[in-house]
Amino acid sequence: MIQRKKKNWFYMLFIWHGSVLPQLLPRLSLLLVFSMIVVHFNGTFYDYKIPLNPAPFTLFGLAIALFLGFRNNASYDRYWEGRKLWGALVIDSRSLLRQALSLTTYDSKSPQIREFTSILIAFAYALKHQLRHTNADIDLEKRLPSEVFERSKSIGFKPTFLQYELANWVKKAKLEGKIDAIGQMAMDANLNQLSAIVGGCERIHSTPLPYTYGVLLHRTVYLYCFFLPFGLVDSLGWLTPIITVFIAYTFVAFETIADELEEPFGTEPNDLPINAMCLTIETTLSEMIGEPVPSPPQLEGYILD
Amino acid sequence: MIQRKKKNWFYMLFIWHGSVLPQLLPRLSLLLVFSMIVVHFNGTFYDYKIPLNPAPFTLFGLAIALFLGFRNNASYDRYWEGRKLWGALVIDSRSLLRQALSLTTYDSKSPQIREFTSILIAFAYALKHQLRHTNADIDLEKRLPSEVFERSKSIGFKPTFLQYELANWVKKAKLEGKIDAIGQMAMDANLNQLSAIVGGCERIHSTPLPYTYGVLLHRTVYLYCFFLPFGLVDSLGWLTPIITVFIAYTFVAFETIADELEEPFGTEPNDLPINAMCLTIETTLSEMIGEPVPSPPQLEGYILD
Amino acid sequence: MIQRKKKNWFYMLFIWHGSVLPQLLPRLSLLLVFSMIVVHFNGTFYDYKIPLNPAPFTLFGLAIALFLGFRNNASYDRYWEGRKLWGALVIDSRSLLRQALSLTTYDSKSPQIREFTSILIAFAYALKHQLRHTNADIDLEKRLPSEVFERSKSIGFKPTFLQYELANWVKKAKLEGKIDAIGQMAMDANLNQLSAIVGGCERIHSTPLPYTYGVLLHRTVYLYCFFLPFGLVDSLGWLTPIITVFIAYTFVAFETIADELEEPFGTEPNDLPINAMCLTIETTLSEMIGEPVPSPPQLEGYILD
Amino acid sequence: MIQRKKKNWFYMLFIWHGSVLPQLLPRLSLLLVFSMIVVHFNGTFYDYKIPLNPAPFTLFGLAIALFLGFRNNASYDRYWEGRKLWGALVIDSRSLLRQALSLTTYDSKSPQIREFTSILIAFAYALKHQLRHTNADIDLEKRLPSEVFERSKSIGFKPTFLQYELANWVKKAKLEGKIDAIGQMAMDANLNQLSAIVGGCERIHSTPLPYTYGVLLHRTVYLYCFFLPFGLVDSLGWLTPIITVFIAYTFVAFETIADELEEPFGTEPNDLPINAMCLTIETTLSEMIGEPVPSPPQLEGYILD
Amino acid sequence: MIQRKKKNWFYMLFIWHGSVLPQLLPRLSLLLVFSMIVVHFNGTFYDYKIPLNPAPFTLFGLAIALFLGFRNNASYDRYWEGRKLWGALVIDSRSLLRQALSLTTYDSKSPQIREFTSILIAFAYALKHQLRHTNADIDLEKRLPSEVFERSKSIGFKPTFLQYELANWVKKAKLEGKIDAIGQMAMDANLNQLSAIVGGCERIHSTPLPYTYGVLLHRTVYLYCFFLPFGLVDSLGWLTPIITVFIAYTFVAFETIADELEEPFGTEPNDLPINAMCLTIETTLSEMIGEPVPSPPQLEGYILD
Repeated sequence: MIQRKKKNWFYMLFIWHGSVLPQLLPRLSLLLVFSMIVVHFNGTFYDYKIPLNPAPFTLFGLAIALFLGFRNNASYDRYWEGRKLWGALVIDSRSLLRQALSLTTYDSKSPQIREFTSILIAFAYALKHQLRHTNADIDLEKRLPSEVFERSKSIGFKPTFLQYELANWVKKAKLEGKIDAIGQMAMDANLNQLSAIVGGCERIHSTPLPYTYGVLLHRTVYLYCFFLPFGLVDSLGWLTPIITVFIAYTFVAFETIADELEEPFGTEPNDLPINAMCLTIETTLSEMIGEPVPSPPQLEGYILD
Repeated sequence: MIQRKKKNWFYMLFIWHGSVLPQLLPRLSLLLVFSMIVVHFNGTFYDYKIPLNPAPFTLFGLAIALFLGFRNNASYDRYWEGRKLWGALVIDSRSLLRQALSLTTYDSKSPQIREFTSILIAFAYALKHQLRHTNADIDLEKRLPSEVFERSKSIGFKPTFLQYELANWVKKAKLEGKIDAIGQMAMDANLNQLSAIVGGCERIHSTPLPYTYGVLLHRTVYLYCFFLPFGLVDSLGWLTPIITVFIAYTFVAFETIADELEEPFGTEPNDLPINAMCLTIETTLSEMIGEPVPSPPQLEGYILD
Repeated sequence: MIQRKKKNWFYMLFIWHGSVLPQLLPRLSLLLVFSMIVVHFNGTFYDYKIPLNPAPFTLFGLAIALFLGFRNNASYDRYWEGRKLWGALVIDSRSLLRQALSLTTYDSKSPQIREFTSILIAFAYALKHQLRHTNADIDLEKRLPSEVFERSKSIGFKPTFLQYELANWVKKAKLEGKIDAIGQMAMDANLNQLSAIVGGCERIHSTPLPYTYGVLLHRTVYLYCFFLPFGLVDSLGWLTPIITVFIAYTFVAFETIADELEEPFGTEPNDLPINAMCLTIETTLSEMIGEPVPSPPQLEGYILD
Repeated sequence: MIQRKKKNWFYMLFIWHGSVLPQLLPRLSLLLVFSMIVVHFNGTFYDYKIPLNPAPFTLFGLAIALFLGFRNNASYDRYWEGRKLWGALVIDSRSLLRQALSLTTYDSKSPQIREFTSILIAFAYALKHQLRHTNADIDLEKRLPSEVFERSKSIGFKPTFLQYELANWVKKAKLEGKIDAIGQMAMDANLNQLSAIVGGCERIHSTPLPYTYGVLLHRTVYLYCFFLPFGLVDSLGWLTPIITVFIAYTFVAFETIADELEEPFGTEPNDLPINAMCLTIETTLSEMIGEPVPSPPQLEGYILD
Repeated sequence: MIQRKKKNWFYMLFIWHGSVLPQLLPRLSLLLVFSMIVVHFNGTFYDYKIPLNPAPFTLFGLAIALFLGFRNNASYDRYWEGRKLWGALVIDSRSLLRQALSLTTYDSKSPQIREFTSILIAFAYALKHQLRHTNADIDLEKRLPSEVFERSKSIGFKPTFLQYELANWVKKAKLEGKIDAIGQMAMDANLNQLSAIVGGCERIHSTPLPYTYGVLLHRTVYLYCFFLPFGLVDSLGWLTPIITVFIAYTFVAFETIADELEEPFGTEPNDLPINAMCLTIETTLSEMIGEPVPSPPQLEGYILD
């Protein structure tokens, strides 16, 4: 579903990659102009030579390497854990439906199975809206049995409510003799797993990296770039602005990506396509019970976020 | 519940972030004055030139990079594991209540379910007070059935006591025929999980990083900053104090954050909001059994620690 | 099955290792010629001296170390996780067949066991074709019972379909009294594991590293190599082209390997031999039920991808 | 139980931390005297100038950063895994006793429960003595039923023997109808966990880091420190001994801590307080069954190792 | 069983550690002679001065740090995972025997228990021979019941065959009413674990690090060492050969250890003592059922590999 980007070594050098460069352009232009001024006055200021040389930049550089490396790893770990959790949601949804089909004696076309499937699908959408602080009602109304939807409207934390509905479905099947105690426990284990997924997403969402890290890193990077032309002008001369902007570009872009990945459930360009993943769940589960899958046009608009 | 901080690149350069800077200010001011004195006497001391240059600072720098990188990663891992454990507590509390509701034949409005819920909620508060060495009695009295509270008063390690009460509740339900052996085992697995959470928190709390690491790092960082003006004064001149203080600020602030994160259950600004998490547990569990949720005013005061 | 490559320290210095060098050769030749031109004009350009020295290369170098280190670790983790998942598939297939043999009362020569085995084997091939976007029909037709194969033809996501067939097989065995509820649950746990494997492979396959990382790294590496001769020519003279090409070779080759490992399920030289692993599964499972193993000639052609 | 050390930034600069400095003092003094001699002869040796400058120290430094960073991370991982295993032992002991109390129909004051508790407590002490190569008999005699103790005396590997006694206890309870098959399996899962803890401790204890790593690192660090005064004397003059000793102190101390942490079950100052953890287990388990807890004086002597 | 090596700081400086140094000696001697020649001609070649200085070595050094750090971490992870897997085999063998003793109603002296034990022990030896490509027959004949041994002779992949024998043993016990369904499932879970161990060892064994990594690293390290004397001769003079050989020694030795650890199941000096671990399993299991443990003389010859 997700298309791989072109990877030609020459092409990649000059591609205008839309996600980070545009927002950096004004800042980099500012820095370019500033570097040119520094070069023109040759590092002097009101007849006073700015006594900077490359030496302290190695010291700065160490601090930046420390911060940026740590920040980036921590952010990417959050991003990748978020991806794993949504992957686990796809896996777990399939497992639960498989169990509903093979551990109970319900027919795969029975209304009970359809109800279970619809709640499972709604669960994914409810989690998405929860994480993006958007209104889940439109998505839930389309999918949930109307009786369940009505009750869901007044609930603040919808994923937990829907999970409880799934548990109740299993309890009812047990009372009606459609599943035995062992089967119930096997499904209960997967419901536990569902709890763990919701909890993991909440954790990533509600606990950002300590803010102080971000502030410290940000200042170090930007002040580094601001002082850079003073340090390079003596040895590089007219090449200073080009080299300065290029070094600044890599550091600042790196910081910006790390910042986007930190909160992977948003709608920024480098965030996770959780909308597409909801659709994947809907498609696979519908296919498993022989329901019509969502139509392509509906799919189109979703694919990128 | 937790609000994201503003992230504007320009704004972040000058924000006065309250958590670390204030405690560092006196030390940084001291260093500023000291650097100015060094510049004024131009690196001489009683007519004797201090023969320092940037060369040994690269060697120092390596040692600092080694220590600070290691220390920071280890501290952040502790912080993030602490967060995971409390996240698991939220997850596990919900799972246990879901099991009490769907694996037993108790009505969701029965006194037994209310008792189980109240012990689960009290468990979270008891763990919080345990980790912060504060008195749990006020919080437990409000939530526990008075008979259980009375017995809890003489107990040293309250979370284990309350967990044992939960196990007894399940045992009683089994003896009364409200849950079968399989259901009991499924709940027992989640009680095991509860033990693992308590044990994990205790582990982080009772085993700090080896103290020697902290002392070594501290000395390296502070002596580095103290020698820095001597090393920079020859090449940077009057810029020395500014650059010195800025480099010192990044290193010292980094060490300070690492120190705060090391023990994530305290009440320092960068510690985990475990009080808010207790309230989250209370709110979700109350919602699940249709009890009134804690009122907003009560919530207000808690949100930050 | 996989042969270890020769490891003589002298031999390894001059081996022509076919996987990466050939594709890099044109670019490195280009760089060699370019460096020679730079040396010949001694870093001047239209009578204007290019004022580059080694100093800014340390700064560049830091950025490269940051990116390349991170990119390489992330790619290798993906590669190794992919390997673990396929290893888990081998393990899980064996476990499921062992359970079918020891937890049910079917005879090991019965048609039911053969059917179960054939679906398990087909499952691995279906996953391979899914990950490589190739047509699974030839492999499935050879292995699946024709009735199952017919139904599989219209299915988009075949591994899930086949897994569901396995679950149905267990359900049927339960209804026929060949396995008890406890045995069914034990097999269900391994079917959950199968879901996790499919989901993990999908995750790695469908979520590449954020594209922006690759672009940034690529640019930093190539521009670094392009500027390198200017920076070295003053101090190294006629040695510049050799040193330049050698440094460029290590960085560019490192980036290229990282790029190949990022998507481990393809057919590039450093990708995983998942075809060979399908064959391993087929061979072991056939041996376990006393079926003839696939003939060596068939094996030959597969061994490398 | 474990008291946090004082953390005042000024105090920490001058604290005499007893665990590492004393053993390093003779070596550092030696280096100080050696550096002074080097300064006095100004880097000459029999009228021959030692031609060292800071340049090769950056190369050395890279090697040290590589080794020391790796060594330290690997050692700390071993230390922390050891801590996790003992934490898991505390958790698992509590869980097993909770299960013995809530899954069986034994009264909490019955001799069977007391016997089970005493074996669990003895298990922790047996593991401690196993890991420290000390004689377990005094500790076991005090705690075990005399009949079990007699049989334990001839056994080489006592933790496995005691674990088997626990399994037998459960088997007997099953045969007497005090626990059902499901309960037995739940306890068996925790006995598996106990095996994993013993095995993990054995693994860390019996497989040190490859010895060659230690030797290589040791040589690199000490030769680096020995050459350092030659490299610094030209630029630093009379400051050389101070700077040399300080840099040496950080590197050598870092290596020493890593060495201590590598084997975390010993009795060196930075090792794990496993004696205190045995006592924690004894205290909590005794409290759970209403037995008198070990008296404070006994506790006092144990707290530090 | 494994004795700790002596750790005296002075002693460690001069110890002749046999595992790596001997194989490196010829290469290092070659480099020493080569460096002396370079010094003698003072870096000139046919009257032409080789224009190398320390500057490009920092760039080289970055590449080496990148490769060597990554390679070493990846190799050590493989080594340590291999160790964990064999540790898990020890743990799992004990757990399976404990279950055979406590979950079945067989007497601990019955022939069935002895048969089960012998297959478990043979399993470890079969895995060892599988990983070392040696003939398992001598070890298996001594331990297996002759009927099982005969059938094992024609099997290619013996560990899986023996594991299947264990599963059959449990199935037979179930059919004879010696174990219930729940007990069978508990043992089945540990048999799954056994599969995971075999699969993990196979994975490490059959998938080395991508070969290209090794080649690239090897070249970078050796060419670095070859160029080193040219870069140092101007500043270090007659000290060049000593410093060169020492730096080369650390880098080359580091690469050599990483190479040995990559495949931990071989018989090189730094590989895992899996023969000793087979013996540990044999000893502990024999002790558990009261069989005579293998005699010391037999033990002697095994202890080192």
